[in-house]
Amino acid sequence: MHKENYFQAINPSTNQLLGGEFKIANINEIDNAVKKATAAFDIYRKKSTHSIADFLDCVADEILSLGDALLERCHLETALPLARLQGERGRTINQLKLFASVVREGSWIDARIDTAIPDRSPIPKPDIRHMLIPLGPVAVFGASNFPLAFSVAGGDTASVLAAGCTVVVKGHPAHPGTSEMVASAFYKAIEKCDMPEGTFQLVQGNTNAVGEHLVKHSGIKAVGFTGSFGGGKALFDLANARPEPIPVFAEMGSTNPVFILPGALEGKTEDIAAGLAGSITLGVGQFCTNPGLSFVQKSEYTNQFYETLSEKINAISTGSMLTGGIKKMYDQGIQNTLTKEGVEDLAIGKSSTEPNSVAARIFRTTIENFSKSPELAEENFGPSSIFVDTQTKGQILEAANNLEGHITATVFGTDADLMNYKGLFDILEKKVGRIVVNGYPTGVEVCHSMVHGGPYPATTASQSTSVGTNAIKRFARPICYQNYSDILLPAALKNDNPLSIWRLLNGELSKNKN
Amino acid sequence: MHKENYFQAINPSTNQLLGGEFKIANINEIDNAVKKATAAFDIYRKKSTHSIADFLDCVADEILSLGDALLERCHLETALPLARLQGERGRTINQLKLFASVVREGSWIDARIDTAIPDRSPIPKPDIRHMLIPLGPVAVFGASNFPLAFSVAGGDTASVLAAGCTVVVKGHPAHPGTSEMVASAFYKAIEKCDMPEGTFQLVQGNTNAVGEHLVKHSGIKAVGFTGSFGGGKALFDLANARPEPIPVFAEMGSTNPVFILPGALEGKTEDIAAGLAGSITLGVGQFCTNPGLSFVQKSEYTNQFYETLSEKINAISTGSMLTGGIKKMYDQGIQNTLTKEGVEDLAIGKSSTEPNSVAARIFRTTIENFSKSPELAEENFGPSSIFVDTQTKGQILEAANNLEGHITATVFGTDADLMNYKGLFDILEKKVGRIVVNGYPTGVEVCHSMVHGGPYPATTASQSTSVGTNAIKRFARPICYQNYSDILLPAALKNDNPLSIWRLLNGELSKNKN
Repeated sequence: MHKENYFQAINPSTNQLLGGEFKIANINEIDNAVKKATAAFDIYRKKSTHSIADFLDCVADEILSLGDALLERCHLETALPLARLQGERGRTINQLKLFASVVREGSWIDARIDTAIPDRSPIPKPDIRHMLIPLGPVAVFGASNFPLAFSVAGGDTASVLAAGCTVVVKGHPAHPGTSEMVASAFYKAIEKCDMPEGTFQLVQGNTNAVGEHLVKHSGIKAVGFTGSFGGGKALFDLANARPEPIPVFAEMGSTNPVFILPGALEGKTEDIAAGLAGSITLGVGQFCTNPGLSFVQKSEYTNQFYETLSEKINAISTGSMLTGGIKKMYDQGIQNTLTKEGVEDLAIGKSSTEPNSVAARIFRTTIENFSKSPELAEENFGPSSIFVDTQTKGQILEAANNLEGHITATVFGTDADLMNYKGLFDILEKKVGRIVVNGYPTGVEVCHSMVHGGPYPATTASQSTSVGTNAIKRFARPICYQNYSDILLPAALKNDNPLSIWRLLNGELSKNKN
Repeated sequence: MHKENYFQAINPSTNQLLGGEFKIANINEIDNAVKKATAAFDIYRKKSTHSIADFLDCVADEILSLGDALLERCHLETALPLARLQGERGRTINQLKLFASVVREGSWIDARIDTAIPDRSPIPKPDIRHMLIPLGPVAVFGASNFPLAFSVAGGDTASVLAAGCTVVVKGHPAHPGTSEMVASAFYKAIEKCDMPEGTFQLVQGNTNAVGEHLVKHSGIKAVGFTGSFGGGKALFDLANARPEPIPVFAEMGSTNPVFILPGALEGKTEDIAAGLAGSITLGVGQFCTNPGLSFVQKSEYTNQFYETLSEKINAISTGSMLTGGIKKMYDQGIQNTLTKEGVEDLAIGKSSTEPNSVAARIFRTTIENFSKSPELAEENFGPSSIFVDTQTKGQILEAANNLEGHITATVFGTDADLMNYKGLFDILEKKVGRIVVNGYPTGVEVCHSMVHGGPYPATTASQSTSVGTNAIKRFARPICYQNYSDILLPAALKNDNPLSIWRLLNGELSKNKN
């Protein structure tokens, strides 16, 4: 029997409760957390870029210091294999270090200087200088599907802290023990690096009320979220209904459409079938970039492709999903798909006897039947995917035109195909944040060029990315200083460029002194 | 008697109808305009950067070609003096040319290239390239107070077209003839530069329905607005309630608080009084950056300052406001101020006998009385301003802390004052988009460093500016291309950098070829 206002984690492989009880934050505790984050913000935002970079590096080191105990607890809470979690920990740590390097280098703040022209006619030109400054305390929601890389110490938290904001993380209730361990790494780093106590805080809870209180709190100035459309949209609406609306950077998933052009399969049936089967089933299909919908342009290799793909899927074992709720939704999605007219049940993979284990499923239909059932275009989170046969280029272009916003789109084709379908790329540009050619959408590279985002309903903020170094800009806003003396200016904008950063000096990028 | 579904302009200096009848766009006409803008977008966005730059330059030339007839009509519709309108036309033209230069230079699109590492372990690194692309057709609302520089060919329209978006402008009903003339310049430039017909369109109307239909249309992908809080907030709410929410960049005015620190007035009473009187009354006080609220830290020069300021205000003549409605609101605001406890009616300027002419008004009160009447902190659009006497640094800091979001804040002080009040700057950074030291907030410089924006309720989009070259970024979003062959890449991202733009190549800014 557990304590009132506490909750426990559930092992999705066994449906058994796991040890450890976690306090469901009440409205007073949330209020206190935001007040601490607000007080800390005034101190943290004034820390030097090097102090903030060192702090992020220190958090990374402290997470590593948690050792295998972190991976083991995480495995129990998520059913994700230890090897995957080890890789995800590496990604989490590298991400923190990448943001540290961005902060240390310093040019991300978009320093701009327009010097005065006192004798300009008819009116003098004043000295004006521009940079980005942090927004304030940010609420970050941990995601279930990446319990390390998109959760407590994930890309949102890393970019929030890198931008100079403080953070209150709402841990995902599916892995509260993992969240608490990762939070402990932050608390140690805060102490070691002499950062204010409220720089990072974790609140937990298995009710929507916790997140709602947090987003409605006047002290919170932005929201980072990765999860379902329902969850993200609810936070977006709450944030816009506040007396002071705030930006919500919600990444809400996607079907990640794939287009297989006529020449793509020649000599590559085996490769593409294997690659897609892997991409569909990776992490039990619980990736934001999981390819859930493919349009296959008819060719002489189509049947061979489906045969090979079916063999691959039949042979793949997938384990437990992250939670019982997710499994239930997945099963329901499969049932819905099967009720649709003209949908062929192409292949079923292997599953284990674990209670929340599911099998991969692929389906096949024609573009005509697909068009009749718009629900077939909706994401079913998990290792299922639907393949739609098209006969003409016009059908491919129309299918692309009918897409909503997605995170990615993928196109397979020969060089000739790609040139012949230039119009497809023109359409996809308007629909997604990332286009992949002859590759797979899963495996999101954390780098300077990454865009993990896209038009609504993939996100609530198509003008941003939640992965890669540009994610930092979500949590900053521009300010300009007019007619400041050098002593009053922040280091980034002082005449002698003490931070040695790139600046737009009277319209020219340079690292020069002014 | 005018035709049904048409409206006429009113001369605010005479309250007489002006010649010319303007169609109130109905829902079908708006639908057609958005459909044309959508069709044009697919062509316009693929134009070369040089074609777009040439087009913007051509629009500027065509506006100039309208000659004095434009200024004369504008003067009749707005009661703004011809000299002011001539200056504003210059600003409008320079703004178009500045955006042309930004597009021609090309680096604004934030090109980023991370090259592949095929042999990276455990998984290969793909080639990923990033740039900004235009959002789609944009709805722009002309503002009443800058009938040229913030209206049909204003900063919003210029930055929308520079970003590669097409635009449907809702003309402000206070100057429909001016709007139509400026629109004709666009139509000529479209023809001369061989741009698609729907690149720019003007719709007119004197009802809210016109703007509402436009913002609700699924083809519109973003909104630019300058005007009242009520108008901007209504569009923001409409846009968020759409099936596909879209960003609204609404600049909704501000009180632009001023802080006069204890040493500021020594030897400068005359200068500052004259400067503030000018800034308060410029354009009949109808500037977004009009200083409506000042905190005056007690010094031995305080009384002399108020005396001098009163003399200046008493001597200044202001003319008609832009519309009868604006005049009525202004008068109401003055009456509200006078009903508040402890508000001294400091000075009244001169007005003409024209029906919508108003006099400048300044008021004085104590911080104690100011705190009792929160309405005193609200903007009263027009040439009125309230001065609040403070006694202590604590009162100044508290007043700053109590501010809502504003476009600007201004601080007057000696070097010693500025250092002594460092805490004031720390607070103001969180409240405004631009901080001016020993200067005046009116006269917004159009340059690379300008931020004309600020936290809500000054705008609905604190992460952007509506003036200056950075305004272009409001109408673009990032996309990335993974594993593209060089031939498939847009020019900005091709290996040999044919546009010679700055790019972030594996994390290093350069103009190098890859």
